[in-house]
Amino acid sequence: MPTTHTELLKQLSWRYAVKKFDASRKISPAIWHAIEQAVVLSPSSYGLQPWRFYVIDNSQVRTQLRAASWNQSQITDASHLVVFARREEVTPADVATYVERIAEVRGVAIETLNDYKGMMVGSVSSPQTLPGGSMETWTRSQVYIALGFFMASCAMLEVDACPMEGFDPRKYDEVLGLPTQGYRAVVVATAGYRAADDTLAKAAKVRYSTQTLFKHV
Amino acid sequence: MPTTHTELLKQLSWRYAVKKFDASRKISPAIWHAIEQAVVLSPSSYGLQPWRFYVIDNSQVRTQLRAASWNQSQITDASHLVVFARREEVTPADVATYVERIAEVRGVAIETLNDYKGMMVGSVSSPQTLPGGSMETWTRSQVYIALGFFMASCAMLEVDACPMEGFDPRKYDEVLGLPTQGYRAVVVATAGYRAADDTLAKAAKVRYSTQTLFKHV
Repeated sequence: MPTTHTELLKQLSWRYAVKKFDASRKISPAIWHAIEQAVVLSPSSYGLQPWRFYVIDNSQVRTQLRAASWNQSQITDASHLVVFARREEVTPADVATYVERIAEVRGVAIETLNDYKGMMVGSVSSPQTLPGGSMETWTRSQVYIALGFFMASCAMLEVDACPMEGFDPRKYDEVLGLPTQGYRAVVVATAGYRAADDTLAKAAKVRYSTQTLFKHV
Repeated sequence: MPTTHTELLKQLSWRYAVKKFDASRKISPAIWHAIEQAVVLSPSSYGLQPWRFYVIDNSQVRTQLRAASWNQSQITDASHLVVFARREEVTPADVATYVERIAEVRGVAIETLNDYKGMMVGSVSSPQTLPGGSMETWTRSQVYIALGFFMASCAMLEVDACPMEGFDPRKYDEVLGLPTQGYRAVVVATAGYRAADDTLAKAAKVRYSTQTLFKHV
């Protein structure tokens, strides 16, 4: 049985951007693994998955990153910290790797994927034609889908989280050595459990009305 | 009780990008309303919600949009078609409207929000300092969070969907008259129910391994 819509909205309403985590509470390995799998299941353009997710377990690295994040406490206090990174350049070689993966997973001959491969190679070789008009904007957008899956999945599992854009991505790149791996930091999410005294937990959620945001044509 | 992780992963694995919808099946009003509400609950930078969602009910408009979408059948056959649009310019006036909304929803004096308002006005007035380096990239990224919420919510409710980037956003803007409303088409999603003969429904999902995509530091 799928989730009921009452249950879905209850969980998404329960969610809020945690300001203060309970540093003593950790997400269990089983739940964390499920969250990673949920993010892996995120859709992306062509299915190319132009992303990588860095989970920062090392407390010294966390301290360094906090200094590059306006000293926000979530960076060190949350159970888990994930840096969502985009592939810097999606190359024809990346497309070839992906096509090999399709052939492997689906058990089809790689030649049957030649047209699809050609289309993808054409797209990534003309980045100005990609949605958003550049490789950077396109891969960045994909990463935000994964962020959406992360946030929604945490909510469904009643794990608290906070998405964060208030950090220095160049400093993150440097501390984590991302450019040499072909990736760039885009956005950060912290997850764990809210502190009992996080006053924002009780604040009403502020949204425009459905009528304001949804227009029927 | 929140969803179990088994249930979450079952639903997200069940999901796939539908190629062919059953044009005779419609999403019920109650379920559709829940999907709209789930999208409204999506997080965004500062909570500013720099977005609007156009649901295209008019079949003639759908036909026009299909012509601007490589003639893909989902545009006309899906139960629902949503155009995810970004706010073209988030202005200090938008920030003021948002701050008024916070004051209204939370029942606080608007003056108590002056610092927060000043920070947001500072950000949107210096778009080169926004994450991604421009107003367009920043608002576009936010829209993809909402797309992620849409896709994940449909999956949880066992509603089929297909996110689509293969369309001419300028033509969409023109057909829907978005620029005069201050919005721009970013990405499209269709939702409904898969056709019995959609061969992709049975294809194995292609993802890189969790070990490949998640790196622990």
